[in-house]
Amino acid sequence: MTDIEEIIQTLLKFRNERDWEQFHNPKDLALAINVEAGELLELFLWKSPDEVKKEKVKEELADVLAFAFLLADKYGFDIKKILLDKIKLNGEKYPVDKAKGTAKKYNEL
Amino acid sequence: MTDIEEIIQTLLKFRNERDWEQFHNPKDLALAINVEAGELLELFLWKSPDEVKKEKVKEELADVLAFAFLLADKYGFDIKKILLDKIKLNGEKYPVDKAKGTAKKYNEL
Amino acid sequence: MTDIEEIIQTLLKFRNERDWEQFHNPKDLALAINVEAGELLELFLWKSPDEVKKEKVKEELADVLAFAFLLADKYGFDIKKILLDKIKLNGEKYPVDKAKGTAKKYNEL
Amino acid sequence: MTDIEEIIQTLLKFRNERDWEQFHNPKDLALAINVEAGELLELFLWKSPDEVKKEKVKEELADVLAFAFLLADKYGFDIKKILLDKIKLNGEKYPVDKAKGTAKKYNEL
Repeated sequence: MTDIEEIIQTLLKFRNERDWEQFHNPKDLALAINVEAGELLELFLWKSPDEVKKEKVKEELADVLAFAFLLADKYGFDIKKILLDKIKLNGEKYPVDKAKGTAKKYNEL
Repeated sequence: MTDIEEIIQTLLKFRNERDWEQFHNPKDLALAINVEAGELLELFLWKSPDEVKKEKVKEELADVLAFAFLLADKYGFDIKKILLDKIKLNGEKYPVDKAKGTAKKYNEL
Repeated sequence: MTDIEEIIQTLLKFRNERDWEQFHNPKDLALAINVEAGELLELFLWKSPDEVKKEKVKEELADVLAFAFLLADKYGFDIKKILLDKIKLNGEKYPVDKAKGTAKKYNEL
Repeated sequence: MTDIEEIIQTLLKFRNERDWEQFHNPKDLALAINVEAGELLELFLWKSPDEVKKEKVKEELADVLAFAFLLADKYGFDIKKILLDKIKLNGEKYPVDKAKGTAKKYNEL
């Protein structure tokens, strides 16, 4: 079992023990990712990066990842595959010679 | 190398080829997670879950995960560890006997 | 007619001409606010505030406000009243003598 | 004084009494809008619209609006004007004959 499979199995066990699959439709999982992303963002609000509490980042980032993994599982996506595919796609949108050293969006390059 | 390490190595190679580490401070990575979470959410807007384009979900979810992995790497977090730790912590906040079958928040159980 | 009433009347006219009330349930309006807030945030991503395109901020901020006004209307909230009420409530959570000059959250004051 | 001016004056008085202008740069105000939008969204998570607590929506929506008004003030935008301008622009992106009764995005019409 890979690392990612082990995480997902642990998440599903947690969910199923609580009979929560009934709430976990894809739309609400996408909402949950946004709610958790907002809680993560709040840790940085009004602050410079070095003032942020690392322990809290750990927890909120884990929540974002947990719902992202559950949404991937809901659709049957292979997380490693969708990431490697997207990185390849982004490589076409952001070719090294144009994108190097600039934070511009692909449609402004 | 685990699955997660392979994904992170691919992300870092992509980032470094473009000399983008200068932009990737933790605060902006947290912003990026929110921006991508919003793009994922947009796919579900005004729609029932079955009307949503699965191919697009794949791409936007991969973007959320990519920045989440990069933020974890920035802080030196072990993704598997922070997820398993958080699931354990959530188990204390949501004990099975109280949380089963209800979507209430832990402070309302 | 107040400023706010005029804005809401214009928004409702726009919505009704397109027969969009059917999509505008409160949950999806809350989603829309998040989607637009994410688009606003993207303008600031990887940037210092002075690099941001003011004209674009104008448009994305207007979109956030438009859906916020529509959600208020959906619930029959008086926007001026809920804002003045919330400012009063925040005044109790953040008393001047404790909150002055600090960005701490009320539960850390 | 219009309703909107009265709200902004009250917000600025609240901010200045606490000496918080130092934290309110445009980027962090955009973050704050996203954080508050996430808290609003959380009220709808795992729920149908009629299960949501209206009193809580009132408070979280007021927070979204408060930071949106403060960001508008920071840039010197006239809120009524940017909203009416954006509604006009959206009218061009979503002409009635094409957009009526459909939730499709303008680039799919």
